[in-house]
Amino acid sequence: MKVYLDNGNTTPVDRRVVDAMEPYFTEKYGHPLFIYSQGKEAHEAVESAKDYIAGTVGAEGYSVTFTSGGTEANDLALRGVANANRNSREHIITSNIETPSVLRICEELEGRGFHVDYLDVDEDGFVDLDQLRELISEETILVSIGHVSDEIGTVQPISKIGEIIQEKNPDVLFHSNAAFSYGQIPFSVREAKVDLLTITAHKLHGPKGVGALISREGIDIEPVNYGYLSMSELRPGTENVPGIVGFKKAAELAFEDFKDKTEHIRVLRDRLMNGIENSISNIVLHGPRGEDRSPANVNYSFKHIEGESILMHLDVRGISVATGSACATRKLEPSHVLTAIGVDPVVAHGAIRFTLSRMNTAEEVNYTLETLQEVVSKLREMSPIKG
Amino acid sequence: MKVYLDNGNTTPVDRRVVDAMEPYFTEKYGHPLFIYSQGKEAHEAVESAKDYIAGTVGAEGYSVTFTSGGTEANDLALRGVANANRNSREHIITSNIETPSVLRICEELEGRGFHVDYLDVDEDGFVDLDQLRELISEETILVSIGHVSDEIGTVQPISKIGEIIQEKNPDVLFHSNAAFSYGQIPFSVREAKVDLLTITAHKLHGPKGVGALISREGIDIEPVNYGYLSMSELRPGTENVPGIVGFKKAAELAFEDFKDKTEHIRVLRDRLMNGIENSISNIVLHGPRGEDRSPANVNYSFKHIEGESILMHLDVRGISVATGSACATRKLEPSHVLTAIGVDPVVAHGAIRFTLSRMNTAEEVNYTLETLQEVVSKLREMSPIKG
Repeated sequence: MKVYLDNGNTTPVDRRVVDAMEPYFTEKYGHPLFIYSQGKEAHEAVESAKDYIAGTVGAEGYSVTFTSGGTEANDLALRGVANANRNSREHIITSNIETPSVLRICEELEGRGFHVDYLDVDEDGFVDLDQLRELISEETILVSIGHVSDEIGTVQPISKIGEIIQEKNPDVLFHSNAAFSYGQIPFSVREAKVDLLTITAHKLHGPKGVGALISREGIDIEPVNYGYLSMSELRPGTENVPGIVGFKKAAELAFEDFKDKTEHIRVLRDRLMNGIENSISNIVLHGPRGEDRSPANVNYSFKHIEGESILMHLDVRGISVATGSACATRKLEPSHVLTAIGVDPVVAHGAIRFTLSRMNTAEEVNYTLETLQEVVSKLREMSPIKG
Repeated sequence: MKVYLDNGNTTPVDRRVVDAMEPYFTEKYGHPLFIYSQGKEAHEAVESAKDYIAGTVGAEGYSVTFTSGGTEANDLALRGVANANRNSREHIITSNIETPSVLRICEELEGRGFHVDYLDVDEDGFVDLDQLRELISEETILVSIGHVSDEIGTVQPISKIGEIIQEKNPDVLFHSNAAFSYGQIPFSVREAKVDLLTITAHKLHGPKGVGALISREGIDIEPVNYGYLSMSELRPGTENVPGIVGFKKAAELAFEDFKDKTEHIRVLRDRLMNGIENSISNIVLHGPRGEDRSPANVNYSFKHIEGESILMHLDVRGISVATGSACATRKLEPSHVLTAIGVDPVVAHGAIRFTLSRMNTAEEVNYTLETLQEVVSKLREMSPIKG
């Protein structure tokens, strides 16, 4: 059995998304800027995707700027807004559990003289709202807080954050990276007072290589890239029309029967969590439980063994997961998120993240539970570090 | 009959390219940074595309950085290299017939204090080599000259330019935008002494949304985007794996039976040019003839009528072309290229650009010639501006 449980990282593209893209590769291949027939149909496809996607997050009337992915959308939101304000203000607030995408952009801004504050989080990963309230000042340009933590599934109180910003200084813009929640957790940018929202297709059974920044009209954003301007005045380059069409289709599939689909994922999550807790001892859950946790995220440390070993043993048995710490990628970085919520480094080393999607099934979860139990007990027998 | 003759702008994706991409959407969808099986196969696909593409331009051992397209590759080459040298040197040389992609990046650099010189071109669009020789100084960081003019098909003497740079100051880097020649005109970066080369997939029957910057090892390039780093240390974001696989396949298809394919295009070009010259009077060819012209490019002004009218009448009859001037896109910009080669603005207004690909046929060219003759004479009868 093949079981893919790293959907928080990237997802298989839905067959229906590929089918929707196909005609835009081979038939409707025109350049959207050109006024002949093929150009017009490409132009209409891009405009229609903008409208549809804006509607899915209550952003009617907002700008939708298609990018090459979530990373570029974050770059445009953070550096674009910071640079547009560089002559008047210099303060940015984010949290210390944001994704590397956001944190590396903040580092770059610090290197050029911006002042960045990183909010602390509690042991479940919720940002410190009192600290946020204290830190917002006349100097603050932007607050950037991700909707959901990709590692530990914490759903931030995004409307509360939006309210605090409005109370303290309504000139401060609010950016949220929703790459890990879009299509899974209902969300209205207008209600949450979010000015800039990052989303991406490839975490939603859409294609890699396309994302979007949704921004309130009238916000001053400086481009982060320069060159040939096609439909957008902000983001240069020929639009990835098939990718954009695929993004729209992926969103349509996520938002049709939305409740049933997220409920399906939530049920699988609870089956997996209950199964792990009932069958394996010496484990530590990372992140909150229940409604405050992403329906797609499960993250446990299995004490006395290394996450990397579990990952490799599961891979051999057809199951793909991520480690909560470092070694699951080709880069050796400790998990800054587990560190931030106070997890002991030794325990963090044994963390495994399972991320579900609507394509997963109860049978897959059952197989994963059986296999995980077997792998964990085998590794613990061999472990030199058992406590 | 449907005839697409705007291949210099964007091309239909070859069916075999779509077939090559397909498994990377629905089966081999892993993230290339991750060490489980799906990650490994994605990683290998990206590495294999890098190697293959480098080999097609004699760039074995060079770095291949995949981007979201030619525009981003130009941005990385120009701003990336300029910014990396900003503390020591400030001079850049380009030409006044580069694409808007390159010219807008140069504008941005000028806005931040870099000094940019724009080489003049002669009436066929060849850059002034004496002027180049004079302008290269100790201050010069980079020379950026496109391999082929997208508008008028001029093939620049790229090896000669490389030689002049080496003679005058070997510290100066040479960037060439080869988006309009890649896969059509043989080219070796090593022979031509090109340090940085821009290529893109969607002008070569590959997908939109993927391009590459090929750069000699050891060149100092500052990122133009920041965020999550996956396989590249220079360009952030999850790799567009299916797009990269499609780019490789498109290159393979262009380079297999390379001579036959370019000869096919050249024969069509000559058939179209001879047909126009033999059947329509009061025309002006833009750009050179023969070997010095791109095999894919045909550009004529039809006097006393507007290019936009020709375009619309051809579109109704199933033929897609570009105007040489302004109105074929939704933006009203005059053709800076026709201005630079000294074309009278009134004549420039009647310019039509036909760009061919290996997918075009002799029958399509015949139909285009008949239709064009009919459209031009009809429009000239109605024209208030006939001379």
